[in-house]
Amino acid sequence: MSNEIKLEFILQAVKSCLPPDLQFVGLHEPYFGGREWDYVKECLDTGWVSSVGKFVDKFEEKLAEFTGVDYAVAVVNGTSAIHICLILAGVEQGDEVLVPALTFVATANAVTYCGAIPHFVESEEKTLGLDPLKLADYLDEIGLVKKSGCFNKKTGRRIRAVLSMHTFGHPVDLDPLVETCRKFKLELIEDAAEALGSYYKGRHVGNWGRLSALSFNGNKIITTGGGGAILTNDSALAKLAKHLTTTAKVPHKWEFYHDMTGYNYRLPNINAALGCAQLEQIPEFLEKKRSLADRYRVAFSNAQGVKFYTEPEFAKSNYWLNVLLMEKEDYNIRDAILELTNANNFMTRPAWKLLHKLPMYESCPRMDLSVAESLESRLINLPSSVFLYK
Amino acid sequence: MSNEIKLEFILQAVKSCLPPDLQFVGLHEPYFGGREWDYVKECLDTGWVSSVGKFVDKFEEKLAEFTGVDYAVAVVNGTSAIHICLILAGVEQGDEVLVPALTFVATANAVTYCGAIPHFVESEEKTLGLDPLKLADYLDEIGLVKKSGCFNKKTGRRIRAVLSMHTFGHPVDLDPLVETCRKFKLELIEDAAEALGSYYKGRHVGNWGRLSALSFNGNKIITTGGGGAILTNDSALAKLAKHLTTTAKVPHKWEFYHDMTGYNYRLPNINAALGCAQLEQIPEFLEKKRSLADRYRVAFSNAQGVKFYTEPEFAKSNYWLNVLLMEKEDYNIRDAILELTNANNFMTRPAWKLLHKLPMYESCPRMDLSVAESLESRLINLPSSVFLYK
Repeated sequence: MSNEIKLEFILQAVKSCLPPDLQFVGLHEPYFGGREWDYVKECLDTGWVSSVGKFVDKFEEKLAEFTGVDYAVAVVNGTSAIHICLILAGVEQGDEVLVPALTFVATANAVTYCGAIPHFVESEEKTLGLDPLKLADYLDEIGLVKKSGCFNKKTGRRIRAVLSMHTFGHPVDLDPLVETCRKFKLELIEDAAEALGSYYKGRHVGNWGRLSALSFNGNKIITTGGGGAILTNDSALAKLAKHLTTTAKVPHKWEFYHDMTGYNYRLPNINAALGCAQLEQIPEFLEKKRSLADRYRVAFSNAQGVKFYTEPEFAKSNYWLNVLLMEKEDYNIRDAILELTNANNFMTRPAWKLLHKLPMYESCPRMDLSVAESLESRLINLPSSVFLYK
Repeated sequence: MSNEIKLEFILQAVKSCLPPDLQFVGLHEPYFGGREWDYVKECLDTGWVSSVGKFVDKFEEKLAEFTGVDYAVAVVNGTSAIHICLILAGVEQGDEVLVPALTFVATANAVTYCGAIPHFVESEEKTLGLDPLKLADYLDEIGLVKKSGCFNKKTGRRIRAVLSMHTFGHPVDLDPLVETCRKFKLELIEDAAEALGSYYKGRHVGNWGRLSALSFNGNKIITTGGGGAILTNDSALAKLAKHLTTTAKVPHKWEFYHDMTGYNYRLPNINAALGCAQLEQIPEFLEKKRSLADRYRVAFSNAQGVKFYTEPEFAKSNYWLNVLLMEKEDYNIRDAILELTNANNFMTRPAWKLLHKLPMYESCPRMDLSVAESLESRLINLPSSVFLYK
């Protein structure tokens, strides 16, 4: 089959899965079909738009309920959620944190905010997330486990944590990852920014490490405009997360006393109001997103040169961003697919540039990244908004 | 006059300035009397709640227009605005930054986020802000000006900038401060978080340093729920501020390439929508706030033991939070006033605990802080919401 025919097949397959009446199909746009107006108007009518108001508490409760994690602390975005998780995990200046090379830049930036160094880890094609077994082999080689933690034999620095990202909503293989972390005395933090509504072996992600992070940016499965949350089953950590994200002010009727260097990371009430309304709709959103993914799966089942990525047997994914993977020998037509689909007003995009290729991270330590490199060169995200399934 | 009589006088004076029909009078609550709902609804109707949408651009334009500064970059809160100002001013790990001891903790926290050290500076009673002449004398003593900048003779560290806060909206004495900064090769950053609508010698604050910061937290003169802005007259700095606050992503139709460690600090569109509606009302807000301040001034003109703080001749203040200052010999009844007014449902509060008294900052360098100490012990903020003037 010639490249032209492959390209045309792919364009038609994408088109066949999407509503015919849209002039432009974005990658992931929000959908407000619930009580968004009511809740936001309540904020305006009562003047409770900022730190005062009930929606932040309600949003946190509902998030905990939905994810099955005991505590959720709402914050201003996913990046700040990751930042606080790292601080609470004890990541300090000069530490290394293991991070997949294939992730959004915020994952590594949050490590940098702590004065720590991202250390890049290989991915596996099965999950698109980091490869726990290869990581274990690598740590056998470069890691030295002491009483006080794991140390990098090459750099001498302490390796404090693994910050694992559920790529495009698809859960990483958590059981072997937990085992790797246990073996090497590493704190596991789940960057679940993209994975609200995703399950690993029947349990919602964000439940495997002591701390995990969610995002409600405008392109996520539910949105608060901008927002995020820290999840934890540890009540002391939850309390500290709330304290750190609200400028570490010690509660008092009028006194302003702060007992540590805190952050202004709390989610405004008006954004939480939006979140409450969005969260009420998530069962419907998840159903529609899985149906759209299934439609893509069928449309691409006979395609040549590409395959549609589907969840492994242990996962139930939210299919946040649908993924097309070029066959290895066809990676060179990826750019032509991006050009053709975008020219036809179907927004598609490649994976993020691998983080070790960005100028600020190119000198960071890393393991062999062949699979991540291969995935980066072959991956295309397809339009995935909730409202595209009708 | 006995303390009991003084207390009763103060309570009655506060009461006489406020509407009689309120069960509880907060310190500073938002007022939505304009097109807030129209604009927010437009966000919801179009799905443009997050990074996409026109309100962020419009809000930035209108802020620049109102303040007379060439460029405004909207961000997620005032703390993040200060943080970015410091980075853009070249503040690096191990530098010192001169900060008033009498300010909200966020001013010093932002310095810490850069890995820099807050160095606490004396205040003057005339402005409630830092004392530029005493600072100059102090720097004569401890500062060493080299080609590469000013160095602290005692610590050996570079002193990079002065981060000056306009306390409760009242402008600091900017002309001598600019002169002090010039003499000692220090970058001036104005923390104008509380001072939107305040003028120094006829020109809006935020115009004296190369960079300044605003806040639109729920308790500020206008609110976006949570939000802030960076102001600058330098187009290159404005461009860099936008870049740094939007994860340093290099614009491309679909590629994700970031050329520096950026931040996820952009203001969501839904919050900017609120800001646009609020900013339209600021002339009216300023008028009402000045009228309320005037009412307090009159009511306290015959008071014993306290005086109402009014702007010095060079300033036109937004009177964000009205200030009562106890006479020096009466500082010991301050807590009784706080107790009495709060017990009567008029929210009042003391100044922030001076920053060098907080555990994380107690070992930071500082000059003599006698005036700041005195102000801290004598200051009370009075209810100041826009809607209290009727």
